[in-house]
Amino acid sequence: MSVPSLTERYERLKKLAKNDLKSDAVTAELSAIFAQSLAWVMDVAARQDLASNVPGKAYFMYKLKTGAKTSRPVNASLFDPNVSPAEFGKIAGGDVNGIAAMRLDQLLYTSAMAFCIATDLTGAGNQKTPGTFFEFFAGHLAAIKFNMNPAKRVKVPNADADVDNSLPTDFIFDLGSGKSRIHMPVKTSTRERVVQAWAHQRVLEGMLGAGRYRGILVALTETNKQKEVSVAEVCLPGQWAAYQMYLAPLYRVYYLDLPKAYEPLRDKYPFIQIWPFSRFFTEYEKIANPAP
Amino acid sequence: MSVPSLTERYERLKKLAKNDLKSDAVTAELSAIFAQSLAWVMDVAARQDLASNVPGKAYFMYKLKTGAKTSRPVNASLFDPNVSPAEFGKIAGGDVNGIAAMRLDQLLYTSAMAFCIATDLTGAGNQKTPGTFFEFFAGHLAAIKFNMNPAKRVKVPNADADVDNSLPTDFIFDLGSGKSRIHMPVKTSTRERVVQAWAHQRVLEGMLGAGRYRGILVALTETNKQKEVSVAEVCLPGQWAAYQMYLAPLYRVYYLDLPKAYEPLRDKYPFIQIWPFSRFFTEYEKIANPAP
Repeated sequence: MSVPSLTERYERLKKLAKNDLKSDAVTAELSAIFAQSLAWVMDVAARQDLASNVPGKAYFMYKLKTGAKTSRPVNASLFDPNVSPAEFGKIAGGDVNGIAAMRLDQLLYTSAMAFCIATDLTGAGNQKTPGTFFEFFAGHLAAIKFNMNPAKRVKVPNADADVDNSLPTDFIFDLGSGKSRIHMPVKTSTRERVVQAWAHQRVLEGMLGAGRYRGILVALTETNKQKEVSVAEVCLPGQWAAYQMYLAPLYRVYYLDLPKAYEPLRDKYPFIQIWPFSRFFTEYEKIANPAP
Repeated sequence: MSVPSLTERYERLKKLAKNDLKSDAVTAELSAIFAQSLAWVMDVAARQDLASNVPGKAYFMYKLKTGAKTSRPVNASLFDPNVSPAEFGKIAGGDVNGIAAMRLDQLLYTSAMAFCIATDLTGAGNQKTPGTFFEFFAGHLAAIKFNMNPAKRVKVPNADADVDNSLPTDFIFDLGSGKSRIHMPVKTSTRERVVQAWAHQRVLEGMLGAGRYRGILVALTETNKQKEVSVAEVCLPGQWAAYQMYLAPLYRVYYLDLPKAYEPLRDKYPFIQIWPFSRFFTEYEKIANPAP
């Protein structure tokens, strides 16, 4: 497998996703990207352990066998290099029936990370490539489950007739008048940019009514590699609590590799519901139902 | 003048600013940095015109005489390479009496840009250096005018006793119970990160009451150099209007090089008051007075 072919596949994914995000064509392209990325990484790179500063989590990175390039940190218990093309195909299509939560977390994490690792090791594409890819990945799965393609803009109401103003947003799923409407930001990591998710949730509440949109943040990980030898998680739980209290509440935050420091936020006010992304597949109908 | 000496001065400025932002020592260090940066740029670099995509504004960049490095775009009518060390000293101390607004805009812009240009041309320091420098510059002038040093955190009120939570912020000037309290974010450019200024303004309003803090955003410019030949301004007026409407109103936005596309925001709802930074020096007492 050659590197350009992965780049070509990514370019094709972009076109297909913009055309019809929930389509079978996107499922097929994602599935091929997962398998091809993983096979290429296995071929050209070797594992190298990283010291973990996160209690209870082990991390490694991939390093080119010939060359200096290394990947982002990889969670050792979530990344499974033995995932088969058939399993990748099921995940890419959101077909998760009968898969236990822990295995589903592995399959989702491995699927999302394989292409990110390959991109780190090739240096192909720019810094945005893994972020855009992950946006398509999570957006595609949500679009399948909500059975509609999302919008990426909302109209801003304004009493003055001469103003025609719309706001670019993350994914917006308008499921209809008797259903929830969903605001879904997707980020590979959030850092200080996370405020955008809560701020846009606030703007939606202000424009269209408290609770009309349910905010669902999907993030990959908050790991940070330090000097090529160790890993830490960059977390801001105090700021998250303040945003949840004083901007607008997010209904769910899902992680593919859930940061340790965010888990306790579930259990004390303002009770931010932060869960592994596998949980989305068991509760998306609850999310779509507007009853509190 | 050698480059390390400018780096040393910047490191000294950081220490002095963290210790006492409004001090004479910071005035002296800033003044020296302005003059030394400008002299060095004049010595090692030459002007090279850029095509301007901004109606009514001309831009150039500085390019090393020996070497490929170039600076960020420079506004030709605002940058005056003939500013004297004495003038730099007055600006660094916020001593603007008797200076006409247009000249004051030139002096402020030239002072802020000289070090940024020098940093672009040396590549010394990291990407954050000009941003941190500009934060000290604007913060120092505001601290002199408000006659107090700002804080950089606010305490988050919480009904649950076991929570001790404070939020890192931009500059906060608590002028006292009968006066305004000021929330002052400072950015060399804002782009999509601008949402943070409005979001933090909203958090302050939510925590401590509508209108208790006046938000004052200070920004240097929104210019973007394209392929080393032309300049555009990156502006998001529709998003700014939505943030002003649905997050929390900022009381002022000041620019050292005011983007063309933001000027009309003053004159239609939500009437964002965006002005050249020189205006701060004529209205800071009005800002400190909480009467609407």
